[in-house]
Parts: sequence; C-alpha cells; structure tokens
Amino acid sequence: MTTGTAMINPVALTQDLVRCPTVTPQEGGALVLLEELLAGAGFTCTRVDRNGTSNLYARWGKKGHARTFGFNGHTDVVPVGDLDAWTKDPFGAEIEDGWLYGRGATDMKSGVAAFAAAAVDFVTDTPPDGAIVLAITGDEEGDATDGTIALLDWMTAQGERLDVCLVGEPTNPDYMGQMMKIGRRGSLNAWFTFKGQQGHAAYPHLARNPLPAMARLMADLSAHELDRGTEHFDASSLAVVTMDVGNPTTNVIPAEGRATVNIRFNDSHSGAGLSDWLRAEADRVAEESGIAVEMQVKISGESFVTPPGPLSEMVARAVQRETNRVPEMSTTGGTSDARFVKNHCPVVEFGLVGHRMHAVDERVRVEQIDQLKAIYGRILADYFG
Amino acid sequence: MTTGTAMINPVALTQDLVRCPTVTPQEGGALVLLEELLAGAGFTCTRVDRNGTSNLYARWGKKGHARTFGFNGHTDVVPVGDLDAWTKDPFGAEIEDGWLYGRGATDMKSGVAAFAAAAVDFVTDTPPDGAIVLAITGDEEGDATDGTIALLDWMTAQGERLDVCLVGEPTNPDYMGQMMKIGRRGSLNAWFTFKGQQGHAAYPHLARNPLPAMARLMADLSAHELDRGTEHFDASSLAVVTMDVGNPTTNVIPAEGRATVNIRFNDSHSGAGLSDWLRAEADRVAEESGIAVEMQVKISGESFVTPPGPLSEMVARAVQRETNRVPEMSTTGGTSDARFVKNHCPVVEFGLVGHRMHAVDERVRVEQIDQLKAIYGRILADYFG
Ligand SMILES: [Zn+2]
Ligand SMILES: [Zn+2]
Repeated sequence: MTTGTAMINPVALTQDLVRCPTVTPQEGGALVLLEELLAGAGFTCTRVDRNGTSNLYARWGKKGHARTFGFNGHTDVVPVGDLDAWTKDPFGAEIEDGWLYGRGATDMKSGVAAFAAAAVDFVTDTPPDGAIVLAITGDEEGDATDGTIALLDWMTAQGERLDVCLVGEPTNPDYMGQMMKIGRRGSLNAWFTFKGQQGHAAYPHLARNPLPAMARLMADLSAHELDRGTEHFDASSLAVVTMDVGNPTTNVIPAEGRATVNIRFNDSHSGAGLSDWLRAEADRVAEESGIAVEMQVKISGESFVTPPGPLSEMVARAVQRETNRVPEMSTTGGTSDARFVKNHCPVVEFGLVGHRMHAVDERVRVEQIDQLKAIYGRILADYFG
Repeated sequence: MTTGTAMINPVALTQDLVRCPTVTPQEGGALVLLEELLAGAGFTCTRVDRNGTSNLYARWGKKGHARTFGFNGHTDVVPVGDLDAWTKDPFGAEIEDGWLYGRGATDMKSGVAAFAAAAVDFVTDTPPDGAIVLAITGDEEGDATDGTIALLDWMTAQGERLDVCLVGEPTNPDYMGQMMKIGRRGSLNAWFTFKGQQGHAAYPHLARNPLPAMARLMADLSAHELDRGTEHFDASSLAVVTMDVGNPTTNVIPAEGRATVNIRFNDSHSGAGLSDWLRAEADRVAEESGIAVEMQVKISGESFVTPPGPLSEMVARAVQRETNRVPEMSTTGGTSDARFVKNHCPVVEFGLVGHRMHAVDERVRVEQIDQLKAIYGRILADYFG
C-alpha cells in the first residue's frame, strides 16, 4: 500500500460547507452534502435526527470492528452577529490573500472538511483492517442536548462503538502545532436571586435592601481560592459574570437583585461539591443579612482528562511531523463535545487555529486546512499501520 | 377684632386644584385659579415663571414689612402611574366615604388649599399689622431647579423677604398631630462605573473582571457605620440602590459594571466630606483590584435644622390645640423645598397625613383638610397676635 495523491480537496469542501446556512439548528444542506460524499466512498451513512436537530453517523468498515477510529465534529455555526461589521459575505466562502472567510470557517467546517477528506482518501488509497467512524452533529453551538449525545445514545442502542476518538475543534491559540487538548475543565453556572423588601431610601428601616448581601456574597466568592491547579489542569476559576437590579430611581431601595456566577473547575472538584459549597456560602450570607438567597445551579460538564498515553502521543507525533512542533497537551479553554465522548472512549482534540471564531470576519488560512487534512491522514495511517 | 366664620372652603378648593392637570411641569390652571382667589382678597400676585416652570408669588400687606409670615407649597404632581390600577379618576377629585381621591390629594394640593383658605380668611377677618406671603411653585416634584429656587432668586432681586416660613408638605406618617419637621437630612447620589477588560470566562487570565471590585466596594460601603445619630437627627444611612451589568451570557466576563449609592446624611456630615470619603474608598478598591473606578456625585441637598425655638413651638402649639397631640419635632424623611427656604429664613414643615402620596388611589380625609386650615389659621393668629 502506498499513500496516494490527495483526491478530495478540503479547501473546496470547506467552501461548500460554509455556503450551507447552518446556524443552529438548521441543517442547511451540510449533512446532505457530506452524506453524499461519504456514501460515495463506501461509508454506511445514517441520519440520527432528534427533536429537530440533524446529525450524521458515517461508518467505513464493519460495525463493531475490533479497531475503530472515530472523528467527531459539528457543522452548525453561531449566528452571524453584526452583519454590517462583516467585510465579506458570512456564507460566501470568499478567499482573499490566502484567507477563507465565513461563519464556521474555523469553528469548525474546515475541521470537518479536513477529517472527511482525510478519511475518504485513506479508505480509498489504503483500505484499513478496521473501521472509521465520522460522527457529525448539528447541535454543538446550541444546547448540545440532541447532537453528540443523540449520536452516542443511538450508537449504544445499535451496538456501534469506537476505540478512540479525535474531536476536530480548533485547539491552537495562535499557530498550527501549538496545542492539543487532552481534557477540559468542568463548567458550572449558578444563578442567585436576593430577595428583600422594597422601600423608600429615606426610610431604610422600613425596607430590607438585598444589595449589600448580594455584594457581600459576590465579593466573598470572588476572593475565594478554589485550588492552585493539578497535574494536568490550571487552577479552577470563578467569575461573577453579571449582577443586575434595574432600579432606575435613586430614592427607592429595590426588592430584588440577581447575580450569575460561572465556575471553570479542574479534577480536584466535582459539580456537586461546588454546588454544595455555593449553597453553603449563600446560606451563610442569608443568615448574616436576613436576606433570602435563592440559587439555581446548572452543571454544563464535569472536568475530564485523557492522561497522556498512546492516543495523545499518536496525535502529537502526527502534528510534529507535519508542523515541526510538539503540541502542548492542554486542558484549557471552554467546553466541547469531547465532554460527552469521554464517557464512551478515550478522546483528544486537535484542529485549526481558532481565528476569530464566533466573531465577525471569521476566517482560516487555506494552507492550514490542507495541513490539517495531512495531519489527520498521518494519524489514520499510524493508527491502522 | 374677632375671629370670623370660615369663608373659604378648603375641601372645595382642593377639589378645584385636583381637577387641574398639573403633572410637572404643567401649570394646568392651578396657579391661575389661586391667583384669582388671592388677588380677590387683596394679595399682590406675581407669576414668577422660569424655563417653562410656572410659580406664583402672592403677598398681602406691605413689601418688606417688619413682620412677614410665609407659606410655601407646590401645585405640581407626579405622574398618574398605572392608570388601570386607580379605582377613581386621578383628576376627578371624587369624595367617597370621607376620602377625597386624586393625584395631589395629599401631596400637596390640600396643603396649598388649606393655607390659601386660612390666609384669605385671616386677612379678611383680622387684617394683621404685617405681611403674609404665599410662595407656590410648579416644580417641586421635578428637578426643582426652577421652582422655589426661582421664587427665592426673584424675591432677593425684588427686595421681598420673609421672617419665617412654614412649608405645607405632608408631615404626619399616620395621623394628624403626629409629627412636624424642623429639618431634613441631606441627600447625595453617587454613580460608580467599574471598568475592566472583557474576555471569555474560560480564559479569565486574559480578562479583567470589574465585578469583584464592584461587589467589594458596595459591600464595604454598606457595612460602614456613618454615625449613630445626632441631637436632632437619626443616624445617617447609605443605600446601594442598584447594580447593573446586563451581561446575558455566562461565558463572557463583562468589561463594565455600574452601581449607584444614595446617602441620607445628618448634620455630622457635609456633602463634600462624604464625596471625599466615597472617592477615597473607590480609590482604595481600585488600587487593590487594578480595576478603574469612576465616580460621579450629585449632592441633592445638605442637611439642615431649625433647632426647636419660637417658630417650631408656635406651630406645635397650634397643632396641639387643634388635635390634642404634641407633634414630634422630626428631621426624618425625604427632601422638600424647605432645603432651599432655610437659606432665606427659619423654616419648619407641617401638613397632612401623606396617605398613598405618589401611589395609586392617593387620597385624603376631608375633615383633615378642614383641620389643617384651622391649624394654619391658629398659627397666623398666634404670630400676628
Ligand atoms: Zn466548535
Ligand atoms: Zn410634595
């Protein structure tokens, strides 16, 4: 077996995908396009749609094969935002000065195009003794309740399985080869409501102002050191992201204040443990102030890590050969669907430079799409070699 | 000279005034009506209008007379608010079960009617050796920049003067005779803006969250004891009245937060001294946090007091004779135009029960309007007796 010439142009495929209007939860033709491409290369394709969300499961090779390599990605994109601020059509996929412009150009239609092109070329040139799965979702930027979760639910029900998985999200802050992700911190949001008694500012003894309690709790939570980091993780962080009252008048003491806290936590914490701590702090301030403090918590994801090992080393090797750089194995940044995949099999993430993702004039260097395809191809060759 | 029978019915006069639509700054016919009444009784009337605000200056007796008694009040009213919540027409002046309903029924068209009726009857029955001035403004509920201030400016320019002044604002919390005001606390508002650097909640080290600094400063200011009260004043109080960010997303650290503080302060403080203290506290938190803290202060009024003496005792005497109650000499509550008058002459305040002032279904007991007129008549008789 020899490595053939590239047959699928990942840049053109990225352009085709960018031209599909796929703001969550619109399918926009992107999965139809990918299904056609993959089916033509011998992939068994199944649309796994749930609650208005479209997802595509494509497998080359036998179901339940002993060696199954998975790619995970998404074709949905965040809204365009301020259209007037864009210098290019967000769905035009225009290329200028080596940049491919468009919503989803980096996050992550180019990543999907790169792994789809690499997988098609690989099975065409060197049909492996194993299986390759592409699990592509249309609900990563939304609630993520009917995307990768739906695919994993369906896989379990169907007896489909993966041995390892690579998520193709952008992972490099500034340049190719800089960083891969071997885990992610957990994320938790807490919404607090402080309830007092409205009144006139001239008669404070007839009112119960909830705002000193709100200020006190937010100041105390902000000042607390959650930890100093662990072997694979930075220190956990807590951010007060908003505090709102909306009282337009200076002579009225308000009845209520609301504050929201976001915690990004490492593997020295659990969502449940942090919820208990927040509740205890809220109760303490309520006790001290006489102000009722209500709290609602939503755990977006627990922290997880795939400790450095065969999978991450294989990915790092491919990155190094292609870019001459050894990628940092990081657990920084926001959440991704890897938080769901990790319940199924070892998972790592490597993709493009996330240039202006979610911002206006989102764009990607075209040569980096080719480079990413080459990296994914090397990984497949290594895995099945 | 003997005291004659009442000639002017203050209840009917209150009704006539309530029927004038005088939401600040509309004159609504109220001052025209009063001018006609007062001119007919021998008062020299001058409209002192400034910047779209209408005010009425009415003097009985010689200008600059050695003994000049002043009444101060306002005919403007706050907006109706939630019209659907009213059970009566806010400008209908309907009387039911002994209550006179309407916007301004207590604050303070009934007070103006009571002192106008008392003054007309008094000069008619027992022309005094002195002068009586009614200074009535149409800008007390608004910015108050072109109301009583305009009248006092004009008086100074014209050589008009008062020896003492009684402001007819509602002063009784629950029943007639309960309370008079001999001063007021000062009031100051401070608007704080906390400026950091926006960023993603997953990368807190790339952002500078202004909210911990906001929470810290508001918690510290709230916890500070300004004083424990003085001879004539309750303790000063500080209220955080609003804190706002308006960040709808939990994964973004905001660039800015805003908070507003209102201070009601007694005669152990000055507006300037409190401004300096707030600035120092803001600077301390800015220093500790690295967050820029901007502050704007507006001093609505300094505290003032007319210590118990001949004027307050004369008013208390009249109240006691009419109600059988000794009124408390208080400095509580919000601001009033007395804060301007006090620069001109000794001033105290006595009026009705402030039932539902500024709220829906504002209303006054009709017998209390008659009682207030009688009290004002007794004060005039005592002063000129
Ligand atoms: Zn993404
Ligand atoms: Zn008033």
